[in-house]
Amino acid sequence: MKLLRFGEPGAEKVGAVDADGVVRDLSSKVPALHARAFENGLLAELARLDLADFPPVEGTPRLGVPWEGISKYVCIGLNYSDHAEEAGMPLPQKPIVFLKAPSAICGPDDDTVQPVGSTKLDWEVELGVVIGRTARCVPEEKAGDYIAGYCVLNDVSERAFQMETTQWAKGKGCDTFGPIGPWLVTADEVPDPGKLDLWLDVNGERMQTGNTDKMIFPVAALIADVSRCMTLLPGDVIATGTPPGVGMGKKPEPIWLNPGDVVELGIAGLGRQRQTIVSAPRP
Amino acid sequence: MKLLRFGEPGAEKVGAVDADGVVRDLSSKVPALHARAFENGLLAELARLDLADFPPVEGTPRLGVPWEGISKYVCIGLNYSDHAEEAGMPLPQKPIVFLKAPSAICGPDDDTVQPVGSTKLDWEVELGVVIGRTARCVPEEKAGDYIAGYCVLNDVSERAFQMETTQWAKGKGCDTFGPIGPWLVTADEVPDPGKLDLWLDVNGERMQTGNTDKMIFPVAALIADVSRCMTLLPGDVIATGTPPGVGMGKKPEPIWLNPGDVVELGIAGLGRQRQTIVSAPRP
Repeated sequence: MKLLRFGEPGAEKVGAVDADGVVRDLSSKVPALHARAFENGLLAELARLDLADFPPVEGTPRLGVPWEGISKYVCIGLNYSDHAEEAGMPLPQKPIVFLKAPSAICGPDDDTVQPVGSTKLDWEVELGVVIGRTARCVPEEKAGDYIAGYCVLNDVSERAFQMETTQWAKGKGCDTFGPIGPWLVTADEVPDPGKLDLWLDVNGERMQTGNTDKMIFPVAALIADVSRCMTLLPGDVIATGTPPGVGMGKKPEPIWLNPGDVVELGIAGLGRQRQTIVSAPRP
Repeated sequence: MKLLRFGEPGAEKVGAVDADGVVRDLSSKVPALHARAFENGLLAELARLDLADFPPVEGTPRLGVPWEGISKYVCIGLNYSDHAEEAGMPLPQKPIVFLKAPSAICGPDDDTVQPVGSTKLDWEVELGVVIGRTARCVPEEKAGDYIAGYCVLNDVSERAFQMETTQWAKGKGCDTFGPIGPWLVTADEVPDPGKLDLWLDVNGERMQTGNTDKMIFPVAALIADVSRCMTLLPGDVIATGTPPGVGMGKKPEPIWLNPGDVVELGIAGLGRQRQTIVSAPRP
């Protein structure tokens, strides 16, 4: 099932994409898509709905974050062997884990606001794993039981902020640096998260191409490793790392985003995002 | 005003400490102390209450986190000049910012659970700054307007997890690694957050002694720097760094916490915490 939320920020309604690609408005029966209900069988309940019973959504409303109640946005650094190679970095021996500020989260097509003082604005298409059940010290072989679904993420990054000190949070957590969606695709529709094509374009030019089969630590290993250190809650999302082709890695010179640039990205079966870069309003 | 919440997890009531140190039960008039109400004048409203109108709390109930609705727990690394010296590290040129997972947050006297696989469990007494208003690109000279108050924090750390990779989140975000309280002390009671004594004992032996006058980046500078990178929301908390005396820095050998150890810590005027270390239940 491809679940989504549409409408203005804070007033989103719940919808789903039917087999013909038509977005159906589920709001008459489903008032909210909140992570705390994932553990109470909400997603199984939704799977039993006949989408033909619901009206199509008219027009092309804004898309919101596909679900509510994200307490943690966990990121994995340098998790693609071909990206590590491109960056000239040794392969990490353990997953590199950091957190993106939840205040960075936004809808999949919302503008990306370039922060005041930013000079090195960059992109990162990533597979997002959405947690469905409270996960604590989960063994790798059981990790699948804890996955609600998958989504497209752009782990937008400001490299100058990121590299200002040893810790990356400053360059990862700026407002609008966490577009999520368009959909929460339930796990049953993604038979193998380790075989998905990813891509990202800037102004129509292909910048990133990759496949999740190049992950150094696959999805199950990431859930095991992160849940060993911190409890993952329903609705938490893990950004699983990015394939080659980020702006910072471009030769002969890095490429940075500027206001007016358009970033489009997607993952096979999980939909696509489109952001326009805008300047921050002066404070 | 010294605000607090008492009772079992998830069922806490709101209280306040009166001038005689008696905890008053405010729950008849104040159903919740939620951060989203900070911007709507909740704290000013509470300041007008006559605490003598409220019954004393009987017994010594558990203390919860003093307020609800913490979306971000921001940490500052290596922010005391005497601690940097002790660690043999150069003084940071910019605040080192990272995030603690919100799932780590707990009451001030709750047990500290040593995670499975932990071998280097450590302590860090820190001054916590509690945000009272949405803060975006706040200039240093106006930072005070955005502070709701202050609190005691123990930035509990697992050094082996922390140092497993370049990013520290794994060793900072384990469950129970974020005790907050006992009180949210409103800003009017803390005339100068840059002149506060801090201390921490393990099993009755003094381990950390410091004063916030040794901060490399004082509170106002931290709010300016963090709010430049990410919007701070009401209820967000900033852990402002720790003075010398952490277990990792002890000579001739580091000292690590083990189950049964008792950690007590406090800050002048802000109260004290007490945690007992316990083993994680095997998963």
